[in-house]
Amino acid sequence: MSTRVEHDLIGEREVPAAVYWGIHTLRALENFSITGKTISSYHDLIVALAAIKQAAAMANRDLGLLDDKIAGAIIEACEQIRAGRWHEQFVVDVIQGGAGTSTNMNANEVIANVALEILGHKKGDYDFLHPNEHVNLSQSTNDVYPTSLRLASCFGVARLIASMQNLQNAFAEKSLEFKDILKMGRTQLQDAVPMTLGQEFQTYAVMLGEDRQRLEEACTLMHEINMGATAIGTGINSHPDYARLICQHLAKLTGLELITAPNLIEATQDCGAFVQLSGVLKRVAVKLSKTCNDLRLLSSGPRAGMGEINLPARQAGSSIMPGKVNPVIPEVVNQVAFEVIGNDVTVSFAAEGGQLQLNAFEPVIAYSVFNSVNHLRAACDTLTENCVRGITANGEYLRHLVENSVGLVTALSPFIGYSAANEVAAEAHAKGGSVAQIVLARGLMTRKELDAVLQPEALTQPRWVKA
Amino acid sequence: MSTRVEHDLIGEREVPAAVYWGIHTLRALENFSITGKTISSYHDLIVALAAIKQAAAMANRDLGLLDDKIAGAIIEACEQIRAGRWHEQFVVDVIQGGAGTSTNMNANEVIANVALEILGHKKGDYDFLHPNEHVNLSQSTNDVYPTSLRLASCFGVARLIASMQNLQNAFAEKSLEFKDILKMGRTQLQDAVPMTLGQEFQTYAVMLGEDRQRLEEACTLMHEINMGATAIGTGINSHPDYARLICQHLAKLTGLELITAPNLIEATQDCGAFVQLSGVLKRVAVKLSKTCNDLRLLSSGPRAGMGEINLPARQAGSSIMPGKVNPVIPEVVNQVAFEVIGNDVTVSFAAEGGQLQLNAFEPVIAYSVFNSVNHLRAACDTLTENCVRGITANGEYLRHLVENSVGLVTALSPFIGYSAANEVAAEAHAKGGSVAQIVLARGLMTRKELDAVLQPEALTQPRWVKA
Amino acid sequence: MSTRVEHDLIGEREVPAAVYWGIHTLRALENFSITGKTISSYHDLIVALAAIKQAAAMANRDLGLLDDKIAGAIIEACEQIRAGRWHEQFVVDVIQGGAGTSTNMNANEVIANVALEILGHKKGDYDFLHPNEHVNLSQSTNDVYPTSLRLASCFGVARLIASMQNLQNAFAEKSLEFKDILKMGRTQLQDAVPMTLGQEFQTYAVMLGEDRQRLEEACTLMHEINMGATAIGTGINSHPDYARLICQHLAKLTGLELITAPNLIEATQDCGAFVQLSGVLKRVAVKLSKTCNDLRLLSSGPRAGMGEINLPARQAGSSIMPGKVNPVIPEVVNQVAFEVIGNDVTVSFAAEGGQLQLNAFEPVIAYSVFNSVNHLRAACDTLTENCVRGITANGEYLRHLVENSVGLVTALSPFIGYSAANEVAAEAHAKGGSVAQIVLARGLMTRKELDAVLQPEALTQPRWVKA
Amino acid sequence: MSTRVEHDLIGEREVPAAVYWGIHTLRALENFSITGKTISSYHDLIVALAAIKQAAAMANRDLGLLDDKIAGAIIEACEQIRAGRWHEQFVVDVIQGGAGTSTNMNANEVIANVALEILGHKKGDYDFLHPNEHVNLSQSTNDVYPTSLRLASCFGVARLIASMQNLQNAFAEKSLEFKDILKMGRTQLQDAVPMTLGQEFQTYAVMLGEDRQRLEEACTLMHEINMGATAIGTGINSHPDYARLICQHLAKLTGLELITAPNLIEATQDCGAFVQLSGVLKRVAVKLSKTCNDLRLLSSGPRAGMGEINLPARQAGSSIMPGKVNPVIPEVVNQVAFEVIGNDVTVSFAAEGGQLQLNAFEPVIAYSVFNSVNHLRAACDTLTENCVRGITANGEYLRHLVENSVGLVTALSPFIGYSAANEVAAEAHAKGGSVAQIVLARGLMTRKELDAVLQPEALTQPRWVKA
Repeated sequence: MSTRVEHDLIGEREVPAAVYWGIHTLRALENFSITGKTISSYHDLIVALAAIKQAAAMANRDLGLLDDKIAGAIIEACEQIRAGRWHEQFVVDVIQGGAGTSTNMNANEVIANVALEILGHKKGDYDFLHPNEHVNLSQSTNDVYPTSLRLASCFGVARLIASMQNLQNAFAEKSLEFKDILKMGRTQLQDAVPMTLGQEFQTYAVMLGEDRQRLEEACTLMHEINMGATAIGTGINSHPDYARLICQHLAKLTGLELITAPNLIEATQDCGAFVQLSGVLKRVAVKLSKTCNDLRLLSSGPRAGMGEINLPARQAGSSIMPGKVNPVIPEVVNQVAFEVIGNDVTVSFAAEGGQLQLNAFEPVIAYSVFNSVNHLRAACDTLTENCVRGITANGEYLRHLVENSVGLVTALSPFIGYSAANEVAAEAHAKGGSVAQIVLARGLMTRKELDAVLQPEALTQPRWVKA
Repeated sequence: MSTRVEHDLIGEREVPAAVYWGIHTLRALENFSITGKTISSYHDLIVALAAIKQAAAMANRDLGLLDDKIAGAIIEACEQIRAGRWHEQFVVDVIQGGAGTSTNMNANEVIANVALEILGHKKGDYDFLHPNEHVNLSQSTNDVYPTSLRLASCFGVARLIASMQNLQNAFAEKSLEFKDILKMGRTQLQDAVPMTLGQEFQTYAVMLGEDRQRLEEACTLMHEINMGATAIGTGINSHPDYARLICQHLAKLTGLELITAPNLIEATQDCGAFVQLSGVLKRVAVKLSKTCNDLRLLSSGPRAGMGEINLPARQAGSSIMPGKVNPVIPEVVNQVAFEVIGNDVTVSFAAEGGQLQLNAFEPVIAYSVFNSVNHLRAACDTLTENCVRGITANGEYLRHLVENSVGLVTALSPFIGYSAANEVAAEAHAKGGSVAQIVLARGLMTRKELDAVLQPEALTQPRWVKA
Repeated sequence: MSTRVEHDLIGEREVPAAVYWGIHTLRALENFSITGKTISSYHDLIVALAAIKQAAAMANRDLGLLDDKIAGAIIEACEQIRAGRWHEQFVVDVIQGGAGTSTNMNANEVIANVALEILGHKKGDYDFLHPNEHVNLSQSTNDVYPTSLRLASCFGVARLIASMQNLQNAFAEKSLEFKDILKMGRTQLQDAVPMTLGQEFQTYAVMLGEDRQRLEEACTLMHEINMGATAIGTGINSHPDYARLICQHLAKLTGLELITAPNLIEATQDCGAFVQLSGVLKRVAVKLSKTCNDLRLLSSGPRAGMGEINLPARQAGSSIMPGKVNPVIPEVVNQVAFEVIGNDVTVSFAAEGGQLQLNAFEPVIAYSVFNSVNHLRAACDTLTENCVRGITANGEYLRHLVENSVGLVTALSPFIGYSAANEVAAEAHAKGGSVAQIVLARGLMTRKELDAVLQPEALTQPRWVKA
Repeated sequence: MSTRVEHDLIGEREVPAAVYWGIHTLRALENFSITGKTISSYHDLIVALAAIKQAAAMANRDLGLLDDKIAGAIIEACEQIRAGRWHEQFVVDVIQGGAGTSTNMNANEVIANVALEILGHKKGDYDFLHPNEHVNLSQSTNDVYPTSLRLASCFGVARLIASMQNLQNAFAEKSLEFKDILKMGRTQLQDAVPMTLGQEFQTYAVMLGEDRQRLEEACTLMHEINMGATAIGTGINSHPDYARLICQHLAKLTGLELITAPNLIEATQDCGAFVQLSGVLKRVAVKLSKTCNDLRLLSSGPRAGMGEINLPARQAGSSIMPGKVNPVIPEVVNQVAFEVIGNDVTVSFAAEGGQLQLNAFEPVIAYSVFNSVNHLRAACDTLTENCVRGITANGEYLRHLVENSVGLVTALSPFIGYSAANEVAAEAHAKGGSVAQIVLARGLMTRKELDAVLQPEALTQPRWVKA
């Protein structure tokens, strides 16, 4: 294999001639062979890194710190990466020591070598254009890396929000479809009072809408970046106008409303925004899991369960039990939710572990948050397309349960009195008849009165009752 | 012991004549002997319950559902509770089954019996004024209990925010006091570049300010209440105007900007707001713990540690080691933080476990969130008063470390060039001299130039450097 | 209020004359006002501390380090505490900074003052008998405190195991009672194949038996103590024979098979045994919660749920819904389980936070583990007595579900062939009849053959089937 | 692309002709596109599945349920897979709904098609050899899948234990190397009493040894398998001798001491063994993280930190700070530890979510446990090779700190008395001299006496001191 020689402060090493990464990346490959998952699998992160390097080159050029030719080559290389090229050159493991230094260096090296070829030079001819002195100019891992995580989070969350919107729409459509299906509501798994299946499905839509808002709020915290902080936030070795300029360029390149953090020292060491985002992702997971628990419960059966709704059959459920179909889609969503909740604990540990002017554990925060975002999105998508849109209801059975329910007595209580209601309930429990039958048999109400009270619209919203 | 007889759907029981609680509370005492911690120890919760019951009586009176005499007695009883009386009568265990029913019933019974005595009746004469039919009128545990948790959370968080503000002020004052003390900043526990001790302490103040904002945002979600939902959110058996009226009364009584949740079915089953609040409390905990880790690290020593700052001595540190003093205040804050982070996992489990129209596990959510809020407040208070306000700095030693640091070479790099800087660093590491000495010995800069570059204000912020 | 003056390395303070604790405890009260929960509420811990101090006095006496009179008074004081006296004098907050120093000092002071009175001296006359120099002789907080946590854990877990045994017995008895009740087993909430209700309840008994074994294993790790370690495990200032002697005395006093840890330096800093115990408690919680989820699910209804079993009514379930009864006992057990799982995360954080030769965060580990143990025990007790023992089954309905189930086709599949079985299942799903009816109608089996195959004992265990 | 047609209970689908998987796998690919991580990336799992299918074929053959030719082809196919072939055909996402059905079906299909080709048939000619009726004979996903997870866990943990043994050896070697280097021990980050650096490193070795034992214990629980349980543990449709036979074959194939679970119904639904293993992995993580925190702390500096030891330089630490080297290896280990702790919470959630006769969430348990095992192993390996083996000590500086330490006074206290010791400590703190100087200046001890007391062997273990 053909190689080229590169060197760093530790010494010299041979790097495969064909690759665009260099010695720093090589060291990282040797040091961090942990998950087998390279940063290239997080496209949002690679695009974010390229955008930052491009914006830095622009700012440095504006300030006269980088000549037009070099800046132009860097910018062109970054444009290519942002368009999807060279991602396979980002080979370092996503979980890495060094507070993201290896990720930053991998980016610097790839961009430098792509830019070198654009300029007609060979890979590794760093005298012309250097990964560190030119691509990384006015930067530090400690501002580049956290900023790249913030941008990538914004990109990913935007797609998650879109998927959640689709899921919300699917639930809202089912809510309309089921708006006239009366059923028993339940508290603590015990029969309570009637509601419509439409009302039940509407809650899932409402929950998703609220969660989208929380995600959007959490993402605005991500818009505060610390470019210009350099090593620890004091901005050492950076030009006083640099932070402002790179923020402007970066905002334009990404379309995000970025601002420079008011206190760069705090912003450089603080992982609070990731803790917040992870916390909200956990909230989304908790509620999505509850929703899927409900779907599995309501579709339990077909004969020895609740049997209220039917999930679309997606695959054979069993090799040994003929005809069995399982709620596989909600089940996979539950599992993603459990992963997200666990990831949140990982993020807490990593954030708490930061010391003094830096948090060295941001890579595992990135790993956790990116996985949470991406897996939740995939879970929402399969839930929408492979489950919710195909749900059907067993309307007749549901109405039968309402009519047969002891819980109906609650609705009659204001008309027949609480103590009579209690007696009716007791008889129903003891002898098994329907509340309506008992009420009629006891002459407490006429069939007409009863029918009026038991109208779905009357049962499922507040109404005036004479004191 | 003198007793009175009360009955419920299960049967009759004797209740001590002296107590204001009744048979439902008695059952709860027998069923839930878990933590030994009664709800009376959460004063915010008792006050919240009384405010709700008072507002309900007002709304029911306005609607003509409760006559003035009964409403008046209930209102007077609630006023007394809100003023601090009768709290010892709230005896049920904070962790309880039944989705808070026992808490609601305990409140109904105590208020009814206090009101009965106000009206000149005896405790237990429920024919005149009934815990359920009058005190609980138009309500259900399923709207009263979650609403009481929301109000109590708002009360508790307001005090926590005030304590955080005090702590923020203490750090800000120290930041000013230490503004001229130059020290080495560190990344990954390795010497990095200079900063001031004032800058370091300012970050702690900034973090607290941001966290207060997050808490305030989380609390606005708490303002959305579900009174009027009754059993499952359909508002069964409630008057169409009731939800609006009780919300108005409750807002006035509590001084909180309460609104009725747009979708009461969703609001009745959803614990999202508690998940959000708990997530933000976890964020506060994570950052407070990081801050205390820093304080313990910076004050490590006195001779074999970092020895940068001194925490006030609060107690003897050891029975066996003469003269030893330990950082006991940050240590207790760390532990509270760990508790809060664990509580957040409990909240996630409880919220995820909700089923269909209700979450039966809100009591353990209350237990977790209330403990997190109260313990964090106590932690902030002791940190402010018993630690931060008394911190002193070892300024001379800190300046010595800066002057002696290899990290200074970063500041010189733009003036002497990156490769010369590397050589200076290598010599310093190998032979142990100061960067300044080596730079002067090599004739790279004059003493005057060096002094100019090493001005604190020059080292600790961005500055123009010729390209 | 009458006071006495005590002093420590910080200065002098007045202590109430009536109390047995002294200045170190006073400092702790001022520094750590966090949970309001004093160590006196953990009787196991107080007894453990007294046993350690007594064993130390015995070992010191044996070695000639303490004269008989002083040793005798200390031993008598400790005996009194172990018998239940003076616990109210242990007033420091369970969550405290200082790695347990305040707990140790509280014990030293109370024991010294009780011993002083035994000797006819006044409280505070430490010239005769000193908290530190006599009660704490040859000890350090760093061996006393972790050892006391280990002993207290053993005491508490022993009671928990007994409660789990009771619960296991209750399930086993129900298993026998229900051994002939055939029902549908379910996988993924979907009807699967038949089993008996007895088999179902037996699994809960088996799980509890396995969990008891795991707890016993975890407790054996607790038997390894570090008395003799003194400050950091090097045993500085302790007699070479001391560690052996105190271990022997302590084993005899507590009835536990204690051993001295082979490496005292490791034992002094390591919290691994608590992490292990907490992890097993979490396992118990997870499985107990699953069991309670099942009980709530199987008893859901009464009409619109699964309705397989009936939990005993323990309290009225609702103020608004006449006749409603809820599964309040399993619900409270679920919540305790959630707390225990959260506590385990707290323990992880605290254990991970240890640094170098000590873990300063053992108090919050104690708080978490003790609460987990005690609350789990209370949960098991109420589940046994107030729920499991009173469970009844709806046997006829269960048999009806089996006979009506499509899942029966699995049992017929070896006799009628997989493809015929599939066709029968399809017809049953489509047209709603019973599998038996369809099989008979199609002439696939005779009634006699069918009856033979559908015998409970045939359906619920392996059997020979011709290939 | 050439295809073949396969069908299942939902209908027909075209499968690429070249692949060995079939329609059930195709459905799974469409349903579960979540993590992008296929089960093929867990080689242990694929090997485990093949071993199970092979053992099942052997047992079925022994019982006359499978003819020799078909059994032989299945066995040959499984042998090939166990030898490393065909792994790329295991394409379903590791996180999947259906309780592992898709994993089991993927295995059945690949094995069937490989076996078909061995027999000279074409892929998809299931009339000759059927994925379900032959490869899966006498099995159910509900026994195959959990058993495969148990085997794979055993394989993975064995390698982890080996890596931990290497790490333990590395620490033990350093412990010997550093056995004569005296240093200050620290409690609560404050200078305590002397110890040797060898003693400090020995604790890390001891911890790893204990953790290996805990892992081995947890793995013995994994040896209990539920093959023969079929659908829910009742063994429906399995031969009474089958469970025994397959267990024997499987034990022989894997070299593991497998036993059939005493209660197969319990074993089929219970995830306790995974909760236990995950809990122990969390324990390993917690302690490994603590160890790395110590390494980072002790190597902090080089000049403004503790500076006690030097970690080998593995890569350049900064692009902006010349000469900076960071503790990147311990940092990556910390992050793996945080991931493992989060994974444990995921496992708790998934285990708690099991319902009735099955836990549908085992796939995410597998994902979490496998990642914990594999990443911990990789972390141990890089820590051993890239860090611990290269650690050096700054012995002179360490001895200087001891001699200069106030903590030495503790060792002198038995000789000069506690009150004199206190005065010496106070003077040392106030004026800054060394304890030895002050003791000599005050004439409390002679130089000779002092030298005797301050011998390393005297300071670092118990010794006889006259009372």
